[in-house]
Amino acid sequence: MLINCVAYQDGQKLDDIPVEEISEYVARPDTFVWVALRDAQPEELAVMQEEFGLHELAVEDASRGHQRPKIEEYGDSLFVVVKTIECRDHEVAIGEVDIFVGRDYILSARDGNSKQGFQDVRTRAEKEPHMLRLGPAFVLYALMDAVVDRYFPVLDMLETELEKIEELIFTQGRQRDNIQRLYELKGKVTLVRHVVAPLMEAVGRLHGGRVPSMCMETQEYFRDVHDHLHRIAASLDGIRDTIATAIQVNLSMVAIDESEVNKRLAAWAAIFAIVTAFAGLWGMNFKYMPELDWKYGYPMAVAIMVGVCLYLHRRFKKAGWL
Amino acid sequence: MLINCVAYQDGQKLDDIPVEEISEYVARPDTFVWVALRDAQPEELAVMQEEFGLHELAVEDASRGHQRPKIEEYGDSLFVVVKTIECRDHEVAIGEVDIFVGRDYILSARDGNSKQGFQDVRTRAEKEPHMLRLGPAFVLYALMDAVVDRYFPVLDMLETELEKIEELIFTQGRQRDNIQRLYELKGKVTLVRHVVAPLMEAVGRLHGGRVPSMCMETQEYFRDVHDHLHRIAASLDGIRDTIATAIQVNLSMVAIDESEVNKRLAAWAAIFAIVTAFAGLWGMNFKYMPELDWKYGYPMAVAIMVGVCLYLHRRFKKAGWL
Amino acid sequence: MLINCVAYQDGQKLDDIPVEEISEYVARPDTFVWVALRDAQPEELAVMQEEFGLHELAVEDASRGHQRPKIEEYGDSLFVVVKTIECRDHEVAIGEVDIFVGRDYILSARDGNSKQGFQDVRTRAEKEPHMLRLGPAFVLYALMDAVVDRYFPVLDMLETELEKIEELIFTQGRQRDNIQRLYELKGKVTLVRHVVAPLMEAVGRLHGGRVPSMCMETQEYFRDVHDHLHRIAASLDGIRDTIATAIQVNLSMVAIDESEVNKRLAAWAAIFAIVTAFAGLWGMNFKYMPELDWKYGYPMAVAIMVGVCLYLHRRFKKAGWL
Amino acid sequence: MLINCVAYQDGQKLDDIPVEEISEYVARPDTFVWVALRDAQPEELAVMQEEFGLHELAVEDASRGHQRPKIEEYGDSLFVVVKTIECRDHEVAIGEVDIFVGRDYILSARDGNSKQGFQDVRTRAEKEPHMLRLGPAFVLYALMDAVVDRYFPVLDMLETELEKIEELIFTQGRQRDNIQRLYELKGKVTLVRHVVAPLMEAVGRLHGGRVPSMCMETQEYFRDVHDHLHRIAASLDGIRDTIATAIQVNLSMVAIDESEVNKRLAAWAAIFAIVTAFAGLWGMNFKYMPELDWKYGYPMAVAIMVGVCLYLHRRFKKAGWL
Amino acid sequence: MLINCVAYQDGQKLDDIPVEEISEYVARPDTFVWVALRDAQPEELAVMQEEFGLHELAVEDASRGHQRPKIEEYGDSLFVVVKTIECRDHEVAIGEVDIFVGRDYILSARDGNSKQGFQDVRTRAEKEPHMLRLGPAFVLYALMDAVVDRYFPVLDMLETELEKIEELIFTQGRQRDNIQRLYELKGKVTLVRHVVAPLMEAVGRLHGGRVPSMCMETQEYFRDVHDHLHRIAASLDGIRDTIATAIQVNLSMVAIDESEVNKRLAAWAAIFAIVTAFAGLWGMNFKYMPELDWKYGYPMAVAIMVGVCLYLHRRFKKAGWL
Repeated sequence: MLINCVAYQDGQKLDDIPVEEISEYVARPDTFVWVALRDAQPEELAVMQEEFGLHELAVEDASRGHQRPKIEEYGDSLFVVVKTIECRDHEVAIGEVDIFVGRDYILSARDGNSKQGFQDVRTRAEKEPHMLRLGPAFVLYALMDAVVDRYFPVLDMLETELEKIEELIFTQGRQRDNIQRLYELKGKVTLVRHVVAPLMEAVGRLHGGRVPSMCMETQEYFRDVHDHLHRIAASLDGIRDTIATAIQVNLSMVAIDESEVNKRLAAWAAIFAIVTAFAGLWGMNFKYMPELDWKYGYPMAVAIMVGVCLYLHRRFKKAGWL
Repeated sequence: MLINCVAYQDGQKLDDIPVEEISEYVARPDTFVWVALRDAQPEELAVMQEEFGLHELAVEDASRGHQRPKIEEYGDSLFVVVKTIECRDHEVAIGEVDIFVGRDYILSARDGNSKQGFQDVRTRAEKEPHMLRLGPAFVLYALMDAVVDRYFPVLDMLETELEKIEELIFTQGRQRDNIQRLYELKGKVTLVRHVVAPLMEAVGRLHGGRVPSMCMETQEYFRDVHDHLHRIAASLDGIRDTIATAIQVNLSMVAIDESEVNKRLAAWAAIFAIVTAFAGLWGMNFKYMPELDWKYGYPMAVAIMVGVCLYLHRRFKKAGWL
Repeated sequence: MLINCVAYQDGQKLDDIPVEEISEYVARPDTFVWVALRDAQPEELAVMQEEFGLHELAVEDASRGHQRPKIEEYGDSLFVVVKTIECRDHEVAIGEVDIFVGRDYILSARDGNSKQGFQDVRTRAEKEPHMLRLGPAFVLYALMDAVVDRYFPVLDMLETELEKIEELIFTQGRQRDNIQRLYELKGKVTLVRHVVAPLMEAVGRLHGGRVPSMCMETQEYFRDVHDHLHRIAASLDGIRDTIATAIQVNLSMVAIDESEVNKRLAAWAAIFAIVTAFAGLWGMNFKYMPELDWKYGYPMAVAIMVGVCLYLHRRFKKAGWL
Repeated sequence: MLINCVAYQDGQKLDDIPVEEISEYVARPDTFVWVALRDAQPEELAVMQEEFGLHELAVEDASRGHQRPKIEEYGDSLFVVVKTIECRDHEVAIGEVDIFVGRDYILSARDGNSKQGFQDVRTRAEKEPHMLRLGPAFVLYALMDAVVDRYFPVLDMLETELEKIEELIFTQGRQRDNIQRLYELKGKVTLVRHVVAPLMEAVGRLHGGRVPSMCMETQEYFRDVHDHLHRIAASLDGIRDTIATAIQVNLSMVAIDESEVNKRLAAWAAIFAIVTAFAGLWGMNFKYMPELDWKYGYPMAVAIMVGVCLYLHRRFKKAGWL
Repeated sequence: MLINCVAYQDGQKLDDIPVEEISEYVARPDTFVWVALRDAQPEELAVMQEEFGLHELAVEDASRGHQRPKIEEYGDSLFVVVKTIECRDHEVAIGEVDIFVGRDYILSARDGNSKQGFQDVRTRAEKEPHMLRLGPAFVLYALMDAVVDRYFPVLDMLETELEKIEELIFTQGRQRDNIQRLYELKGKVTLVRHVVAPLMEAVGRLHGGRVPSMCMETQEYFRDVHDHLHRIAASLDGIRDTIATAIQVNLSMVAIDESEVNKRLAAWAAIFAIVTAFAGLWGMNFKYMPELDWKYGYPMAVAIMVGVCLYLHRRFKKAGWL
């Protein structure tokens, strides 16, 4: 579905243009065309391929979807795949944006999983004609910057989730719940990492070393995007590492709790076992058991039992078992 | 066993040719020969070695089999080993395809573990004469692309298997089964990874940096294959990582389940121990135990026992032990 | 908030100068201006941006804060982000210092989390005119050196904390506490590592290979800072590694302690179970149980019980269970 | 101990020559000398050092032994250390072969731990004069190829051992044995890896990039050796990884087995505790316990006990505890 | 404290010279001065700095101490920090040697933790004038070689210690001790590794690639040192890896031992519980319990109890629980 198709000259918007005139505008000097698609159908992509002269393999990737984030050079045009991440009810939804960039055009196509569009990017760009004059490379930067900026709230969500689990990690009786949440969190972090890591690697090649000629003037901007991705990746690694430790610690806590429960039970069991043993003793049927005939034999027996119990109770208390 | 032996000129099929005329066709300009073998016998390979002038070490590797996936340059010809992966009844079967490529020929030899042949690759290639005109390098790409595309269903199988285990990972009483399945899955993933990782490394050298001259024109296609392998490798790493965590989590679940069972048992044991202790008390044979002579001594005793039991039961219930 | 704004010529302090005259002084030969801000407001940064001609992206980063430590080149000026670490009541507080350096100026802006200022750096630098003559690059070194030197006490605190835990790691009954402290310590180490690692990487590019021209003469000094960071990073890795092992060891100790407690309890339980079994035996109501009628039957029974108990006690003691 | 000392010209064996004539033959054109030593004594090495002009440090290393596998260049000669691995009664025995190679000579010295000699290598080489004409570099290849080929049976032994353990890993009651065998296997794998890894790294420098001039013509052969080592290293890594997982899985199995045994025991304990509690109840000495006087009181009591036991037994069976 | 201060010309010792004449001798052609200090005081270092023209930062590092092992170039002189390791009563003591090397001088300063001096190095060097003629670079090699050679006994001690623990790892009842010793051993290995790893990295830059001009002629010697360090580092990694596995295995052994003890106890508990249950049964006070009146009721009862016990005992024995 076509969303926008606009021609820009010298950083100024010329006009919305019909798709079939694209190749005409692209040919003009200092002019570029910026097209936005959504849920692009194969036929739409075929039209674009013809108008812009896109490379067959790039179009194939774009129509198939499910690509890894990447930046590929085809001659002096670029094919960029970035992934959007959106939070919905504590779940992480991954979308895909395919971007074709050439000297005189930029074409972005996002799939249905990216609910949030890029209208705001276009609006802001049109307000900065001195930047827009840098051409499609600047638009590419603006789009990538927008995508990456939207990763930060996801990162915050993951960190908040981790902190919530950490608060309960030393609480007795929460281990089953904790481990389940840690496992799910780990899954989400892995998902996000598979989005961030390859993109970071790819963007790293847009500044510093051998940079595609188109991006020469904007490389400081791509370094900025790279730096943001670096920050996100470092945080993700931190979360992953903490989750791994937390899982281990959780297991320790299970073991510690169990050993404490065991001690408490064992202490009580010992106390009752003693009472039972004494009771068994005086329950024997020997004929000559003088204490059985004593007037105060029974209270004495009970007193002995209670006494032993109290003594053991105190000792166990002291040893920290009760 | 010879399957096909066809000569192509300018991207068009000339004819099926007999093996002994190969060297003749190879010598013609703009012509190349594409031979497919299956379960190649040493004698067949010897014939091919002579017709194509293959390097001794490459032929030795091919006749021995059990090679790592690799791409080796011998002068300006290539020797390529790729592995096929097929699923049979949830098991993973690894086959091998050895490919010899030169300026004017391509020879593929698959072993008996690769049930699925490459007839479809040939058929499709013959329908695209503009591509086939690129020569043996394009055929090499087409074969590798076919092999790698067949990895994706295997990956899906592994991921489905993992998801099935994950659904049961927090279910009580399934831990023995889970751990066994995780261990087996890990084995399969390791198997697949040993196929994918070295191939990815090897294909990486067919685009970008110093590329064998034969593949110069097709390097964008090899980058595409490389990218697919990259995607598969990333998924495999994800699965491996998840399996490792799942094994740890499974151990935690065993410990948690056990500690819960322990608590429940201990609670019941405590209740019965108290009853037994009281019964022992009143089972003693002291002469002067006034309550034994009370008319309602017995019901009272039973009432006390039941009362204590109910009290403990409620307390344990509250503490979450029962 | 402006703290200082001073012009230096040939390594000598000229004078405190008003902000609006900065650009004038910057234009003089052999003169540079050194400005220190604290909790810089956007308006202050805007003034500085104009006076010094700072790059838009750098200023944006500085006003947003929460950057990773980094060193970025913009043309022939540098934008440096370093993090300060301060200990407060065994907690680790992270602050940020943003430094803009050009041929003729250096501007540092620290945020509110860095309690300790850099007045001492300025004082010492002014006492070494032969060093100060090297210009802003030397001041940059002096600032970074001061920041990094303040990491060492933090490292000491972490190491002391670890040693305290290690002393108790083989002490019975401390495992819950130990694991909690290890987990918290790990968190602090991770925090510090995220400060040190990227800075080390960045400083590494200020000596040795391709060095920004401004830092050519001072690269031996930056190598010194790099070396300090290297030492800190190695110590942090050592602590991390030790914590990981300590967590594992702690789990083992829980298991060992539990198994020892279990043995002790089981031994006592066995002893009492035997007494109870014997008592039960002689408590049976068979008519013909000759020993019940013996005169010394009761003492004999008690003697047997005590004897068996003593025997078992000795055996368990020997086996190391009691 | 001298084993062989032979001169070759143009790929043909000239003759066995006495040691003192070595330097004479070495000086002839197209001639090289191939010497094999075993358990070389310092004096023998001193003679060789003089005849061939070996480097002092290389000779020192060779006479000391216990070197890491390595390939060192001294001017245009090479000093190569490879390790042999032999299986003896499921144990792994590591031997050492030191090889000195120059333009016109090759000298190999194996120590007493390498039972198997290299006579077969010499025999085969002498049958291939077209290869032997390539000179000492080819002999070096032939020796290294032989050494590395002998690693494969060791690898097979390790893999077989691992498979045997894997078959028993989910068998109850084998965990102690399994863990001991896994630990020992790990030790052997580590031993073999320390032999393979540095050699692979070293051989990697004999093909592809900057290759010692002597090995220029034979680099395809060294690539073949490198590839074999790569395959072995990958298998070793696979084994290591599987052992690590197997150790973890084994611990899980211990925990699972224990928790199942615990449940079974607890179930039986509960059944007997109930019988004892009831027996205690009716063993009390209250005067007015009507059921004691009933004619069928006793059978009724036994019936109740048996009934409760059967009921519990069925419930536990259902819950999978028995 | 000054230990030696000697001038050498053409590999021959000239004379012990007073400190104040150093700069004079340094100026002579083919002459170099070799100074050895111990526990160097700041004033001594200041004198040396003046005589040799040492770099300020290097002197600062040397007087502060506690440096990481490193090799730094200052112009065409080197500043080298190496660590000595000595075993004292199974403890590892780390000392530091700082070495300043220039075209015409070498100055070594060891601290108080390096008990063993380098007199033997000097003695041996003076006996090899042809080596000593290579100048300070050779002396540097000789010193580093001596330091690194002294690492081997430490490595042996660590390996012996590990082997001793390994012998006991499958012994019951040694787990607490084992884990404590493994933890301590790990600490020592970490200590040694922090000494070896950075030195290896640093020495790696003295041969092969871009080598400081001073070391060009001696790079084969430094490669030898590098190789020794490589061997040590590989062994340390092996020990570390084995310790990690041993800790895991130890935990498994604790679990296995515990589960075996549990089974044994449970078996005995079951046997006694049955006796108690039977005794309870015949201890009930029902009026009509015919067996109580049988003449041989009591022996029969005891026989039943003993019989059941024996039966259970055999069954448990068979199942491997007793």
